[in-house]
Amino acid sequence: MTNTELLAPRGQLSLADWAARTRQSALQQMLTAASRPDVISFALGLPAAELFPTEAFARAAAHVLAEDPRALQYSPPLRSLKGQVVELMARRGVTCREEQVFLTAGAQQGMSLLARVLLNHGGRVVTDELTYTGFQQVVEPFQPEVLTVPADPRRGMDLGALEALLERETRPAFVYAIPEGHNPLGVSMSGADRARLAELAAAYQVPVVEDDAYGFLSYDGANVPPVRAHDERWVFYVGSFSKILAPALRAGWLVVPEELTPALSVIKEASDIDTATFSQRLIAAYLAAGHLPGHVEALRREYGARRDLMLAALGEHFPPDARWNVPRAGVFVWVELARPVDTVRLLGVAIETERVAFLPGPAFSAGGSTRGGGCLRLNFSHCPPGRIEEGVARLAHALGTV
Amino acid sequence: MTNTELLAPRGQLSLADWAARTRQSALQQMLTAASRPDVISFALGLPAAELFPTEAFARAAAHVLAEDPRALQYSPPLRSLKGQVVELMARRGVTCREEQVFLTAGAQQGMSLLARVLLNHGGRVVTDELTYTGFQQVVEPFQPEVLTVPADPRRGMDLGALEALLERETRPAFVYAIPEGHNPLGVSMSGADRARLAELAAAYQVPVVEDDAYGFLSYDGANVPPVRAHDERWVFYVGSFSKILAPALRAGWLVVPEELTPALSVIKEASDIDTATFSQRLIAAYLAAGHLPGHVEALRREYGARRDLMLAALGEHFPPDARWNVPRAGVFVWVELARPVDTVRLLGVAIETERVAFLPGPAFSAGGSTRGGGCLRLNFSHCPPGRIEEGVARLAHALGTV
Repeated sequence: MTNTELLAPRGQLSLADWAARTRQSALQQMLTAASRPDVISFALGLPAAELFPTEAFARAAAHVLAEDPRALQYSPPLRSLKGQVVELMARRGVTCREEQVFLTAGAQQGMSLLARVLLNHGGRVVTDELTYTGFQQVVEPFQPEVLTVPADPRRGMDLGALEALLERETRPAFVYAIPEGHNPLGVSMSGADRARLAELAAAYQVPVVEDDAYGFLSYDGANVPPVRAHDERWVFYVGSFSKILAPALRAGWLVVPEELTPALSVIKEASDIDTATFSQRLIAAYLAAGHLPGHVEALRREYGARRDLMLAALGEHFPPDARWNVPRAGVFVWVELARPVDTVRLLGVAIETERVAFLPGPAFSAGGSTRGGGCLRLNFSHCPPGRIEEGVARLAHALGTV
Repeated sequence: MTNTELLAPRGQLSLADWAARTRQSALQQMLTAASRPDVISFALGLPAAELFPTEAFARAAAHVLAEDPRALQYSPPLRSLKGQVVELMARRGVTCREEQVFLTAGAQQGMSLLARVLLNHGGRVVTDELTYTGFQQVVEPFQPEVLTVPADPRRGMDLGALEALLERETRPAFVYAIPEGHNPLGVSMSGADRARLAELAAAYQVPVVEDDAYGFLSYDGANVPPVRAHDERWVFYVGSFSKILAPALRAGWLVVPEELTPALSVIKEASDIDTATFSQRLIAAYLAAGHLPGHVEALRREYGARRDLMLAALGEHFPPDARWNVPRAGVFVWVELARPVDTVRLLGVAIETERVAFLPGPAFSAGGSTRGGGCLRLNFSHCPPGRIEEGVARLAHALGTV
């Protein structure tokens, strides 16, 4: 018998409730259009591929495969890499121990694991009214109540509003925050605000999940220690090698109270087997060779220069009443238009007529906020420097037509 | 201020309900003891590390990093690898299309994604009364009702009992089955039983999640096509490169109805970003070089020989009234003792006094079944062939003392 003869009648597959509601959005369809090579894209938060340390990785791969008999086998999460993360965190201004480091397949998995450890079905979480879409994807299956606080592209999360919320509401499962190089707002919280956020977490006994994916990409010589530097019990740190090394390695880490690691390990084992990966060993070999500090410096110089090109182009081409911030870290500029432009419609026009792409503010709205209206998120790390001004000029031209 | 000055009072972290119940079992503690180098371990389902194709991987890594500018960047799941999986499935006896292939970070992630697509909180699933512990880890956070059917180490899942259950109960979310090289039972279902299982899935419109992690590791020249060969709508196939290439690459695949892939993609994106990984590109380069068929043949020869050594040693050293099967595929032998030995206690004795480890049958019980009592799961793929008889003899000696 062949497959065809045995095909079942086309009955209805029965999916889990929330999965059955999953749809590709109009925005995702537009982004597929935006990936055409003739489009200048400021849309996604991609690293510059030409800066990946491919030769050093090739040497690391050859070394690991030749020297380490456990390189490809199931084995416990890589102890040596945990030690290297402890050193890396020290450079970030955080004191921690190997036992507090939990290795993940990237920051997104780190968040996903933490959500599963902390959040009950139908529970409540707190975040900025404009926030990383991947956070929203992480919590959605729990059908949670998402409470939001205002966030400003010059200061970040409104901590007065957060305190009022924590005072008013029953204890939420956690607060999700992006204090450094905020996605999408591009803002970095001040050192004083970070200390205050840590104090609120401890005072209200509510964990802060601190997404520091862009933490090492700071410009202008700044390195403000993260919230985790101020509290080791109530701040759960999410780190990533995706932006400072390479996303396709899928490697990141958490820094959490040691008592959380058994539950995290059980969840990770159920998700993808909690084993040392070949990527972890590659990165450990790369770090052991001492390459990272120089590489991060090179990224800071190059991304800082691209940021400056974008800011100059905005000043040159955008309407004088538009406003934007000067990102001290990360890979995004947040632009606020003076008039209430429908930026989702603008994106369609920009791609079709000007061959330039960005992400519209409303894509980042959490908990029903309308705060992203008339706003654009522009990425400056991925576009080659020679095309940044051209792209901004095209975008300004599209803006003039809507 | 320093970390220490700002340490919060040690309040109680509030975890999600099921996470708060997570504990390391006594069994896990014993397995930590069993990983000492002087212990001969038949406990875990590890591949033989000495057979990993490390040189071919080193060449593949050098090639990918030198030739493919997207090797380390975010990019869509690797189309070329999907095409290669279609060819691989054809060798397994299954006709499928690229659009039905969904790439995963290994079989465990494949199962985890499918459970999240199919299972509601508190829903019901069906499996063998003795089944892979990773399946139980996958469904546990949903706090499901786990319904079981009897399974025999000579025939596999009792399909009469399954049909009676499907007739009796309201439609479960899915049936989880391991038709080839069953873990822990070592049994492979007959071709006729596979066709019958596919018919039941279609007739009752209940998906079968077919775990074929050991599908390519069949011995004695057998290659019985999987259940998926008989139905492309109601059978969701889970495949893995962990056992035929290397676990540390974390790569596997699903073959599912095309309509399921958008939901799977959203869930995978939330879990770890649904991107082409460096591992996927490594494997694609390895497959393109044509190495896999010869490598799988070598694995079959070597694991088949180790299986025969273990079966001979059991005949030599184990009590004459003990029974075991002859696995046609996979990496496990299932041993049933004639008397009601407490095999969890036996494991403690075996490790302490004889320096040999295995997994006790009750570790695999699902839905409260007591069927694993007096049984042992023995792995034959990982232990060097020269130590297999010695290990079985030591185990038989330990058995004589309890």
